[in-house]
Amino acid sequence: MLQPGERLDYLIREDLRIIQNDAVFSFSTDALLLGHFTEVRKRDRILDMCAGNGVIPLLLSDKGNNVITGVEIQPQLVNMAERSIQYNHLEDRIAMVEMDINALVQAYAPAQFDLITCNPPYFKANQTNQHQLEAHKIARHEIFCTLDDCLRVSNHLLKEGGRIVMVHRAERMLDLFESMRHYRIEPKRLHMIYSKPGKAAQTIVVEGRKGGRQGLDIAPPFYIYDAQGDYTPEMKEIYYG
Amino acid sequence: MLQPGERLDYLIREDLRIIQNDAVFSFSTDALLLGHFTEVRKRDRILDMCAGNGVIPLLLSDKGNNVITGVEIQPQLVNMAERSIQYNHLEDRIAMVEMDINALVQAYAPAQFDLITCNPPYFKANQTNQHQLEAHKIARHEIFCTLDDCLRVSNHLLKEGGRIVMVHRAERMLDLFESMRHYRIEPKRLHMIYSKPGKAAQTIVVEGRKGGRQGLDIAPPFYIYDAQGDYTPEMKEIYYG
Repeated sequence: MLQPGERLDYLIREDLRIIQNDAVFSFSTDALLLGHFTEVRKRDRILDMCAGNGVIPLLLSDKGNNVITGVEIQPQLVNMAERSIQYNHLEDRIAMVEMDINALVQAYAPAQFDLITCNPPYFKANQTNQHQLEAHKIARHEIFCTLDDCLRVSNHLLKEGGRIVMVHRAERMLDLFESMRHYRIEPKRLHMIYSKPGKAAQTIVVEGRKGGRQGLDIAPPFYIYDAQGDYTPEMKEIYYG
Repeated sequence: MLQPGERLDYLIREDLRIIQNDAVFSFSTDALLLGHFTEVRKRDRILDMCAGNGVIPLLLSDKGNNVITGVEIQPQLVNMAERSIQYNHLEDRIAMVEMDINALVQAYAPAQFDLITCNPPYFKANQTNQHQLEAHKIARHEIFCTLDDCLRVSNHLLKEGGRIVMVHRAERMLDLFESMRHYRIEPKRLHMIYSKPGKAAQTIVVEGRKGGRQGLDIAPPFYIYDAQGDYTPEMKEIYYG
């Protein structure tokens, strides 16, 4: 089932397998953090935007028996995700859709989902140091999907009171908050991810609620490494359970 | 020099005295944090809005030889601040102005200051549990001065590239960012203040720059108490130097 350049990686905690290909796409620590900080409720209908090789749907599938839809624009990634879903026998619970997220507004009636997750492209399309490979470029830069697109589409797809959980670069926090409020999605909870003690935060995970009332809860800081450079117990928990 | 109900407190690190009166106004830990996280440059012309009993001007006076103006609406607090300034022989460097900050737009020509500090009223005027005492009420609730007022006035008073450092409740972070951007003051640095490990952040200190380019730096988290309930070394440093 593996194609040239692909490998079968292990999501240890979830006891699931995932197809990766460094030349195309491999999930990052940020995806694991997004999965970790996303609370899944029993009846949630879940959509994962910018699903890549399906890592978030796979991680969330372990948190309940919910049906999860993953949306990804790159056919090669959709294909990788679908083979991972088959390998884990999750075809009845996870469906991949090959689509530009901007087309979801036409493809889906409003207010269909309780929970949306999104690990979007982090960098502006015009930013320098763009990665050489086209597939990486699309996954990392706002070429087909900007932050604003994610929130506009989420406003359409979320039920009133529905939640979106996004991971992003700390330096884009303001843009994220601004887009959320612009589309009536109130930021309700903020996690700051620090690589190690004493350094600035690099990553944030934000949960917003459509039509939610104002008031942001700032969670305790999360450290990936301790001062000795080892994984913290909380990071080991994410990896190994 | 002390009036009934007043006491003379000690700013240990700065070796300065300050007049306080619990029935009227006493500075909080947040004021110390604001002072601590405010970087003062040699030629900065400094304005402190909502100056209360002058604690921020006193703290900042120890960071250089800058001239500092404090603006406070309550005559009794201006009077307390002025006596503290005299006691510390700082009359040539700190001046108090009794004024509604909203009047500063008429009183001062634009672009006069390099640095503005502000520890504003935290609570919306209509919020319940308002403190009984009138003086406290004005200091704690947005009666004469809203967050939006602070940023609008700062936009007028700051030079292009000038900085504002504000302390506020963590739950108002979104409002603060929104007002800043609305008045062309870009949030550049965010400090999260945690009372102790494992709890949500209660307080934030934000530095903005007028006309600054986008990109927020999130500083390492600051803890007031450690897990045993003792002051952390960094908090002791603020208190005792």
